[in-house]
Amino acid sequence: AHILLLPGDGIGPEVTAAARVCLEAAASRAGLSLSFDEAPFGGAGIDACGSPLPEETLQKARASDAVFLGAVGGPAWDSAPQRPEAGLLGLRKALGLFANLRPVKVMAGLEDFSPLRPERVRGADLLIVRELTGGLYFGAREEGRERASDSCVYTAEEVTRIARVAFEAARGRSGRVTSVDKANVLATSRLWRAVVEDVARDFPDVALDHQLVDSAAMALVTNPARFDVILTENLFGDILSDEAAVIAGSIGLLGSASLGADGPGLFEPIHGSAPDIAGQDKANPAGAIASAALLLRHGLKQAEAADRLEAALEAQLRAGPLTADLGGDSGCAAFAEKVAAHAA
Amino acid sequence: AHILLLPGDGIGPEVTAAARVCLEAAASRAGLSLSFDEAPFGGAGIDACGSPLPEETLQKARASDAVFLGAVGGPAWDSAPQRPEAGLLGLRKALGLFANLRPVKVMAGLEDFSPLRPERVRGADLLIVRELTGGLYFGAREEGRERASDSCVYTAEEVTRIARVAFEAARGRSGRVTSVDKANVLATSRLWRAVVEDVARDFPDVALDHQLVDSAAMALVTNPARFDVILTENLFGDILSDEAAVIAGSIGLLGSASLGADGPGLFEPIHGSAPDIAGQDKANPAGAIASAALLLRHGLKQAEAADRLEAALEAQLRAGPLTADLGGDSGCAAFAEKVAAHAA
Ligand SMILES: CC(C)[C@H](C(=O)O)[C@@H](O)C(=O)O
Ligand SMILES: CC(C)[C@H](C(=O)O)[C@@H](O)C(=O)O
Repeated sequence: AHILLLPGDGIGPEVTAAARVCLEAAASRAGLSLSFDEAPFGGAGIDACGSPLPEETLQKARASDAVFLGAVGGPAWDSAPQRPEAGLLGLRKALGLFANLRPVKVMAGLEDFSPLRPERVRGADLLIVRELTGGLYFGAREEGRERASDSCVYTAEEVTRIARVAFEAARGRSGRVTSVDKANVLATSRLWRAVVEDVARDFPDVALDHQLVDSAAMALVTNPARFDVILTENLFGDILSDEAAVIAGSIGLLGSASLGADGPGLFEPIHGSAPDIAGQDKANPAGAIASAALLLRHGLKQAEAADRLEAALEAQLRAGPLTADLGGDSGCAAFAEKVAAHAA
Repeated sequence: AHILLLPGDGIGPEVTAAARVCLEAAASRAGLSLSFDEAPFGGAGIDACGSPLPEETLQKARASDAVFLGAVGGPAWDSAPQRPEAGLLGLRKALGLFANLRPVKVMAGLEDFSPLRPERVRGADLLIVRELTGGLYFGAREEGRERASDSCVYTAEEVTRIARVAFEAARGRSGRVTSVDKANVLATSRLWRAVVEDVARDFPDVALDHQLVDSAAMALVTNPARFDVILTENLFGDILSDEAAVIAGSIGLLGSASLGADGPGLFEPIHGSAPDIAGQDKANPAGAIASAALLLRHGLKQAEAADRLEAALEAQLRAGPLTADLGGDSGCAAFAEKVAAHAA
């Protein structure tokens, strides 16, 4: 299989290198041969080609089996005509990556990294399924200094396909979907709720409940273990997935998968580019490694290799040494080497 | 001064009665004479007059010096043609209540109610200033089962007036405003950010920073004590203020004020109508009492009486007994009587 690496900006290149080492170890153990290419993207794309998503990068992405992204953005491009993040939004749209999956799990024995009291967070293991190519992110906009507008549009088709992803995922988990919307205010949320109800009829084995987004934002803090799969639209998913992420203790730990109907998926850690620590071998590669496991699972359909890499990561997180964000003194590369050794 | 009470639904009437007892005690101590009237609103408005905001209720609200609201909504009106919450949105718009203030304070000694680790939550004392009559809440909508849309519009004028409220408030606090937006995606957020920068020039004594909403949702959990005033638009404010509220330990503890340029303000606890415990004297009246204090402070400009009532509430929360949601065995009315006795 052929993987395109988009190292991106800040700590992106370091964590991408870390993910690659682990991918190679897990793949060779599974008898799978991987080839890699790299392309400029985000701020690095702006610097190299004047665009956060250079045409050649997009072509390489389309031709790959899976795309791995490190991180994009940083103050270096604050006054660039295009933002590095525009590359990310463009890539999501161009590859039709409508389903963003963010698993958040508090690993047994690692509850102490969470800002929540251990008894609150124990057992939390949830999956956020976020719609990624619709809503306010991609609606018509009017820019202006006197008046500005954004529009949020959803079609039944868009809601149906993301809802199916959530219900399918729930089947392989605890069998519960919580659909989050703001149906007491928004027309798109009322459509959302009605369509999700329709889809639910095809999944009688999955339990569905609906929750308003403000209430869900509370419940994630008071009782994260109540959730199994959270299904939500693009902007709510952006907010709730970051909120949920910190509950696991560090956004450095979590990965994400963005999938389309066909074609390559995009796999990236949920942390940002952290320009303040870039190039110092201080980044936590765990999120990138978790994303590499998602790449194996969803991108290459190598469930066993994915399980193996996840177990290797968990073992190393338990054994330590950890990176500085988790109070340890390991470098980024050394941590990844150890995980790769477990996975090999 | 003349106060209109809108007891509303569920536990609304109980907590409204509790707030009234405390308002009367604090006012008589301050030599202030208060008169009260009551009107149907929310589900109670639908039941009594077929509308969640009956015309007569609105007229009484306009004629009052301040409006106190208990809570609205509940499953009883799930299939009503209008939702009880529509009354709330209608009242906000009709009275021009563009500024929603939600103070969130973790009282010393009461950190144990928070789901966060005590060392995380210690010292948290923030004020959310939420724009309340613009954005997605009041934009044009298209309802539909195949396609639906909502639009988000902001004008420079709307942003300016809410930003001024936040900067003024910061002056009386720690002098810091964090403006929360999604400027890397939304046109309205870019307008928001630019206008907030303009307003900041009139407040050189106040420090301003900007934070993306996803990042703010994380920071509220990891480090709530970093915030002083959070300034944000309507929907982000809805989500973040509920998230922030649980950090204080119980949404039963917090009050809110919704203010316009002139005319009466609306004061209400942030909790919902909790139909499951309605009529059982089990509700926590602390949020309603905190709202009564905000009514004294912002509605009637009685800062001393407000301070006194807040101190009385804090003393009673420390001394107990507390209501069931906080693990105690006090009834709603008994708790309020004790606060009133402190305040008298
Ligand atoms: C960088 C930004 C545009 C992006 C988003 O809002 O989707 C990010 O926050 C994310 O969640 O992947
Ligand atoms: C009831 C609902 C319409 C309302 C809102 O979303 O504004 C509530 O959640 C609030 O925050 O006051």
